[in-house]
Amino acid sequence: MITSASNQKVKQVVQWQKKARERRRDGVFVAEGFKLFSEAPEQAIREVYLSEHASLRLDGDEKIRDRLAVTGYEIVSDDIFRKMSDTDTPQGILCVVERPVYTLDGMLDEPAPLLAVLDGLQDPGNLGTILRTGEGAGITGVIIGKETVDIYHPKTVRATMGSIFRVPFLQVEDLPETIRIIRQRGIKTYAAHLSGKNCYGSFSFRDGCAFLIGSEGRGLSPEIAGTADHMLKIPMEGRVESLNAAVAASLLFYEAYRQRQE
Amino acid sequence: MITSASNQKVKQVVQWQKKARERRRDGVFVAEGFKLFSEAPEQAIREVYLSEHASLRLDGDEKIRDRLAVTGYEIVSDDIFRKMSDTDTPQGILCVVERPVYTLDGMLDEPAPLLAVLDGLQDPGNLGTILRTGEGAGITGVIIGKETVDIYHPKTVRATMGSIFRVPFLQVEDLPETIRIIRQRGIKTYAAHLSGKNCYGSFSFRDGCAFLIGSEGRGLSPEIAGTADHMLKIPMEGRVESLNAAVAASLLFYEAYRQRQE
Repeated sequence: MITSASNQKVKQVVQWQKKARERRRDGVFVAEGFKLFSEAPEQAIREVYLSEHASLRLDGDEKIRDRLAVTGYEIVSDDIFRKMSDTDTPQGILCVVERPVYTLDGMLDEPAPLLAVLDGLQDPGNLGTILRTGEGAGITGVIIGKETVDIYHPKTVRATMGSIFRVPFLQVEDLPETIRIIRQRGIKTYAAHLSGKNCYGSFSFRDGCAFLIGSEGRGLSPEIAGTADHMLKIPMEGRVESLNAAVAASLLFYEAYRQRQE
Repeated sequence: MITSASNQKVKQVVQWQKKARERRRDGVFVAEGFKLFSEAPEQAIREVYLSEHASLRLDGDEKIRDRLAVTGYEIVSDDIFRKMSDTDTPQGILCVVERPVYTLDGMLDEPAPLLAVLDGLQDPGNLGTILRTGEGAGITGVIIGKETVDIYHPKTVRATMGSIFRVPFLQVEDLPETIRIIRQRGIKTYAAHLSGKNCYGSFSFRDGCAFLIGSEGRGLSPEIAGTADHMLKIPMEGRVESLNAAVAASLLFYEAYRQRQE
């Protein structure tokens, strides 16, 4: 059992939790909790840590025990586990997972791609929620500009509730250039924007389409908004000036989903 | 200028920020930031505090200055303001606001009420987002059971983006009894639930209706789910087991909104 905070593995996990740069350098991220551990692709799991408390309470959970037998694991004293955890009330399990590799070509080879393009999102919870709702609505990929928070941020990973293991995504350096390629492939781009005249329900999203989603505070940057084939409006009553970014994305995803089910 | 953390007013604001009980006792809550200050009903503003830094930068903002001239304010040194603030990067303005008083009768006297009934929501941000999206979709009231996080939690207030000043809401002791009264008045109750067979888009929400929204982790309690006239399904692809509570609520609100606009 690991009982020292100066243990090299413990120190490395703490670094991966805290620093996007360290995660990127090593091509990994940390997924906490039983749900995420059980949904991570088994071959991608590099390390597993269990708190002593959690290790003593696995009797009832055959699926978790079977998986642990395959992945291997180390037990960590409860106080050290708390230091490794990003949460206030850790569940007592975390795993280090290799990053998946997706390509733009792969995303665009789908028959009628349904993409989310994220420009400058700052809230890790919103980003995770977008992946989660996106999987629910059947989106085929998420493209993430470099101004957006790291998708491997521990809060984002948790907020995806496992969708991070299943929804293809791409962190790109040059978002305008990526959008140019997408449009060249016949995918229409739609921006939710205050200048939009027509309600989002009045467009057809049955063919390949990409929703451009801006940051919580400032919306889309003018450069990205300028790449939209259509500006659309999400109607708002009262004195509401905008919706939460994850809520706006969810309304668009589910409108596309509804149309595609008909 | 207030420069001491032991100033009674400073200590009281810190208590109101931290403790639901203190807020309730005094019938107030704290709203931070320029947007919330400018949208609070003027006659409900009891106290206003400006950081020294913010007070020196008001020249361009006539609306804020006019309002401050009416409400009055006190200037607080920047380090003391940081102690009073609930945020990591305070905007430099906060106000203490009297709580609004709404009644169930008032909510039910609307021609076709569109209500959200919240059971056990724990995330302050989700609660705030529900008010914000709710205002956007034209809901007429929010009913909040006592297991749900305090609506006057500083994070909730901020997440409403001002909707807390405009959407009628009620914190009730006895949620099942309140739902009984609502149903007696002919309002149909709908629960998003795993046992729902029919998609939310297949119901009519044109007449008075109430959406029952459960907690992030456990969904609706069986007692509250049992009060639903209809169980509805939000379809989900992939391996998604549920949606974020604020996202689920937003999809229902905007479906009702869409139907009511037709």
